[in-house]
Amino acid sequence: MGDDFVENKQVLFKGYISRAPIETDMELKIGNKIKLRAPTESGALLVKNLYVSCDPYMRARMRDFHGSYLPPFRPGSVIEGFGVSKVIDSDDQNFKPGDIVSGFTGWEEYTLIRSTESVRRVAADEDIPLSYHIGLLGMPGFTAYAGFFQVCSPKKDDYVFVSAASGAVGQLVGQLAKLHGCYVVGSAGSNHKVDLLKNKLGFDEAFNYKEEPDLDAALKRYFPHGIDVYFENVGGDMLDAVLLNMRLHGRIAVCGMVSQHGNSDPKGIRNLIHVIPKRIRMQGFLQSDFVHLFPRFVDEVTALYKQGKIIYVEDVNEGLETGPSAFVGLFSGKNVGKQVIRVA
Amino acid sequence: MGDDFVENKQVLFKGYISRAPIETDMELKIGNKIKLRAPTESGALLVKNLYVSCDPYMRARMRDFHGSYLPPFRPGSVIEGFGVSKVIDSDDQNFKPGDIVSGFTGWEEYTLIRSTESVRRVAADEDIPLSYHIGLLGMPGFTAYAGFFQVCSPKKDDYVFVSAASGAVGQLVGQLAKLHGCYVVGSAGSNHKVDLLKNKLGFDEAFNYKEEPDLDAALKRYFPHGIDVYFENVGGDMLDAVLLNMRLHGRIAVCGMVSQHGNSDPKGIRNLIHVIPKRIRMQGFLQSDFVHLFPRFVDEVTALYKQGKIIYVEDVNEGLETGPSAFVGLFSGKNVGKQVIRVA
Repeated sequence: MGDDFVENKQVLFKGYISRAPIETDMELKIGNKIKLRAPTESGALLVKNLYVSCDPYMRARMRDFHGSYLPPFRPGSVIEGFGVSKVIDSDDQNFKPGDIVSGFTGWEEYTLIRSTESVRRVAADEDIPLSYHIGLLGMPGFTAYAGFFQVCSPKKDDYVFVSAASGAVGQLVGQLAKLHGCYVVGSAGSNHKVDLLKNKLGFDEAFNYKEEPDLDAALKRYFPHGIDVYFENVGGDMLDAVLLNMRLHGRIAVCGMVSQHGNSDPKGIRNLIHVIPKRIRMQGFLQSDFVHLFPRFVDEVTALYKQGKIIYVEDVNEGLETGPSAFVGLFSGKNVGKQVIRVA
Repeated sequence: MGDDFVENKQVLFKGYISRAPIETDMELKIGNKIKLRAPTESGALLVKNLYVSCDPYMRARMRDFHGSYLPPFRPGSVIEGFGVSKVIDSDDQNFKPGDIVSGFTGWEEYTLIRSTESVRRVAADEDIPLSYHIGLLGMPGFTAYAGFFQVCSPKKDDYVFVSAASGAVGQLVGQLAKLHGCYVVGSAGSNHKVDLLKNKLGFDEAFNYKEEPDLDAALKRYFPHGIDVYFENVGGDMLDAVLLNMRLHGRIAVCGMVSQHGNSDPKGIRNLIHVIPKRIRMQGFLQSDFVHLFPRFVDEVTALYKQGKIIYVEDVNEGLETGPSAFVGLFSGKNVGKQVIRVA
């Protein structure tokens, strides 16, 4: 360790955009050096990043808009996101070298984490892949858990529809809904993903929305009695079609709208008037509102995973240099399952 | 009384439409005769209609669409709607001649009401105008009461916005919100209505949306801290602008969307994505879901009215022949306050 400087490969954010991201909005920077020390009295951690997470919400931080729940990235700075990291040096007595932590870190090999409130220690457990702490047991998994149980008010035998169903959030929503006794249908953007949903993730049915010229007709085929719960991940045309197929007192949990993320001119939702006769409750949410439930979530989902009742599909890219293309791929559905980058 | 037939002037529905209604979608029919008797063993009431109600929801019954909560009107039949009527003859032991009733009746001078479940007896009270039983103390008033207290989750000091604020529902929402300790702003479509809101109905502020080229800017002017509760009566551009101005954990009660009623090609809502970072709950509702609260509503609002804490503005047209133009006028905001037709 010592006071020597080491090379620290980084992925930088170049500048604000108002369109969908492209790879050249980010750039790999080689040659930066970092001292592997948490400065005295800094309260900081110096960590080695093992995995970093590609999540659609990060798109919002690439816009020059300061009114959101997270500030925008700063042009020229390292991209920030969730990660799983190993503590190299610690000036915070709650952490010690060798600890594995999960929380906000940088897209780089080593990060000096100055605010440790956004970081938690991860229990060593050889049955749980480390990358799951930014997926199944991290923000996406908790989004599924909190959104489904706290926002969707699910009941046994409810008809549940999940869009982007093989994604980081959707795949867990569907499995939790099945375990809750619901009938679950998912949509995804390729036949490979549809196959995953039906034959690996245990959905009752699934369809490839790209092969459905009429989404309303597709939903009527899969939900002849209508939809009680829609876990909304995509927005746009799918939400409009769902509004035509909701049952009385249906619930729509809105968390993603990934199809609209790249859009400064979002497509209008035309069927919103159906919320009146159907008495639909549409609720936007962020997992962070339910943070008091996080420990319970980790316990419950860890147990379900160890019992073999839940599985989790990841799409792991090797190396920081693959970060930009992996991130961009989220918005065209290139990833199959939760997209993570293995750093080291 | 006897078995003599009497003339029964009627307003008939002519045929299905998919545009905004025009006067010639209805027609006055003179010359029909009716016997002033409730047939033996029919369980029916023969009533003389005193007032009938013009309500925007009736537009939905003019479409050839059978999947809604109310069936469409039948072409060639009398228009059905809420009314206040006097019982002439009764074959139901719960009602007797002379009773004043409120409920579903026809746009005609006399109606044979075959299903008395949709009719309730109205207590004689010389302090309450009879027409209020289709307004302040009828469906529109109950929509305001149930929507505000049961759907909007209002708190003291909330910033409340009401669109179509001088209308049958909006004027009561605003007054209930003021009594609840909220800050209340209303929008309406004329300077006369704005004056009513500010100087008669007790709103803190009001504006004429037709004089605001930029609704977002107008809302930012009236709500520099944002909106906690939006009682949504109009849809369209106003809803889109409101979505840009909601506060964290804001609530939107959706019941009208009158601006979209005439529209078979409704304008899309483009800012729905804001429900996520703002964690907005948008809830469609019908007053009929809260029918168990109706007696409490009548007691409370009657008491508030008698104490002078609530007023109610009506727009009363004289004679059934004015019904079609009064109904059509709802969709261009011609009415000032609750639109009723005095039949007799």
